[in-house]
Amino acid sequence: MKLVRFGERGAERPGLIDAEGRVRDLSDVVPDVAGDALTADGLARIRERDPASLPEVPVGARLGPCVGNVRNFIGVGLNFADHAAETGLRVPREPILFNKAPNCVSGPNDDVMLPKAAQKVDWEVELAIVIGDRASNVEEADALSHIAGVCICNDVTERHFQTERSGQWTKGKGCPTFGPLGPWLVTLDEAGDLDNLAMWLDVNGRRMQDGSTSTMIFRVPYLVSYVSTFMTLDPGDVITTGTPPGVGMAMNPPVFLKAGDTMRLGIAGLGEQQQTIVPYRETEGGRGSSAYKTGFDIPR
Amino acid sequence: MKLVRFGERGAERPGLIDAEGRVRDLSDVVPDVAGDALTADGLARIRERDPASLPEVPVGARLGPCVGNVRNFIGVGLNFADHAAETGLRVPREPILFNKAPNCVSGPNDDVMLPKAAQKVDWEVELAIVIGDRASNVEEADALSHIAGVCICNDVTERHFQTERSGQWTKGKGCPTFGPLGPWLVTLDEAGDLDNLAMWLDVNGRRMQDGSTSTMIFRVPYLVSYVSTFMTLDPGDVITTGTPPGVGMAMNPPVFLKAGDTMRLGIAGLGEQQQTIVPYRETEGGRGSSAYKTGFDIPR
Repeated sequence: MKLVRFGERGAERPGLIDAEGRVRDLSDVVPDVAGDALTADGLARIRERDPASLPEVPVGARLGPCVGNVRNFIGVGLNFADHAAETGLRVPREPILFNKAPNCVSGPNDDVMLPKAAQKVDWEVELAIVIGDRASNVEEADALSHIAGVCICNDVTERHFQTERSGQWTKGKGCPTFGPLGPWLVTLDEAGDLDNLAMWLDVNGRRMQDGSTSTMIFRVPYLVSYVSTFMTLDPGDVITTGTPPGVGMAMNPPVFLKAGDTMRLGIAGLGEQQQTIVPYRETEGGRGSSAYKTGFDIPR
Repeated sequence: MKLVRFGERGAERPGLIDAEGRVRDLSDVVPDVAGDALTADGLARIRERDPASLPEVPVGARLGPCVGNVRNFIGVGLNFADHAAETGLRVPREPILFNKAPNCVSGPNDDVMLPKAAQKVDWEVELAIVIGDRASNVEEADALSHIAGVCICNDVTERHFQTERSGQWTKGKGCPTFGPLGPWLVTLDEAGDLDNLAMWLDVNGRRMQDGSTSTMIFRVPYLVSYVSTFMTLDPGDVITTGTPPGVGMAMNPPVFLKAGDTMRLGIAGLGEQQQTIVPYRETEGGRGSSAYKTGFDIPR
């Protein structure tokens, strides 16, 4: 299945892509593509429904991030042998883990906003894992059964924040809009060979990244097993698995994103994303708006 | 106000402590001590109610973490001059930020479980900030208005995972049960001078940490302002602000926690926590249980 979330930012509804490529509304089946709907039981319930019986969503509806209510958004650093080489850093002995702020999640085609103090905003096409059933100390051989599906993530990064601001990468990874996820959450039966997916990213029409998951150092089942030894992974948690070569900071001279630039990126079988870089706007991350629902309204 | 969450793990209800120290049930006022209930508007709505008009909760009810639905759980590293000295690490130029997994949050008196592969589990009494109104690029002078309140956090840490497992502290910070929060979320009007709060921690009755927020390098308003330049802080996000000297890894020889040990810790005006260390249990972080609600049940 290809699951989606459609509608206005912060008010997305669950949907799926039918055999003709149309979006069908899953609102009567699950409340969201999130949490318990992502477990094996939840996905089985969605599968029971004939897509043709679900309401069609009008063409052109905005697609939101393909998973809702993300809580733990984990990134894996330097996980491609050829990317580690281009950064001049050593291949790590174990996966490097960092966090992206959960509220940086955004839709696959939403604008990416420069942070107020941005200096070095960079791109990273990545394969993201979305957790289904809870995973704690799972064996590598059992890890796939804890995955709901996979999707594209643009692990947008501010390099100055990440590496020049005294401690831990999280500073450059979670700025508002730095986590486009989607367009589709593709269940594993339709995702192809996770160890051999072509992946690419263009900036302003120029191919910058042209890689494959085949050069990943630590593979998907290993990563789920590994992370689950340190922390419990819950339904809807996301692990984005690292990027192939071709990021801006590794160019000579380095190239970083500026307002008006466009990114287009894809992974074989998982669709495409397209984002435009926009300047910092006071309202975007301010009191008045949010990239996600904060929970509930207070009853009066 | 002193806000609490009481009841069974994963099904906590909102409450407050009345003038006589009794827990009163806030279920009719807000759905949870979480999200929008923590904004200035939400807290004002709670203040409107006379505590004496709220149902009394039976004495002995379990207290859960004093904030629910935590999404971004941020830690600050080496933020006490005297603690930085004991670790032999340099005082950082800027705050060091790392993440604790949001599902490591637990109640103030819940057991702390050793991870399956634990080697070096350590304690850290800390002052935690709970965000109220959303904060993005806020000035230091305006930062306090974005805070709902403060509470005690035991920033339990596995030192081997944190520093000897190849990359980024998050590995040792988010193991299940490693984030006791509470007993109370104390609003700023009742929290005293945040720059001069005594804080202490005993292990098995022996005083190990005996410090004060007066030796914090980066203070509460600065930290909120600083973090908000990198990511948007939303209602219910938590920043735990670092620990004073006296952690186990800094002793000679180092001392780490083992099953059966007890920790007791407190901060002046914010109450006390007490935890017992228990061995790893397969079910604790496994499919069958969770430290928090994962969102919703799937309707049939």
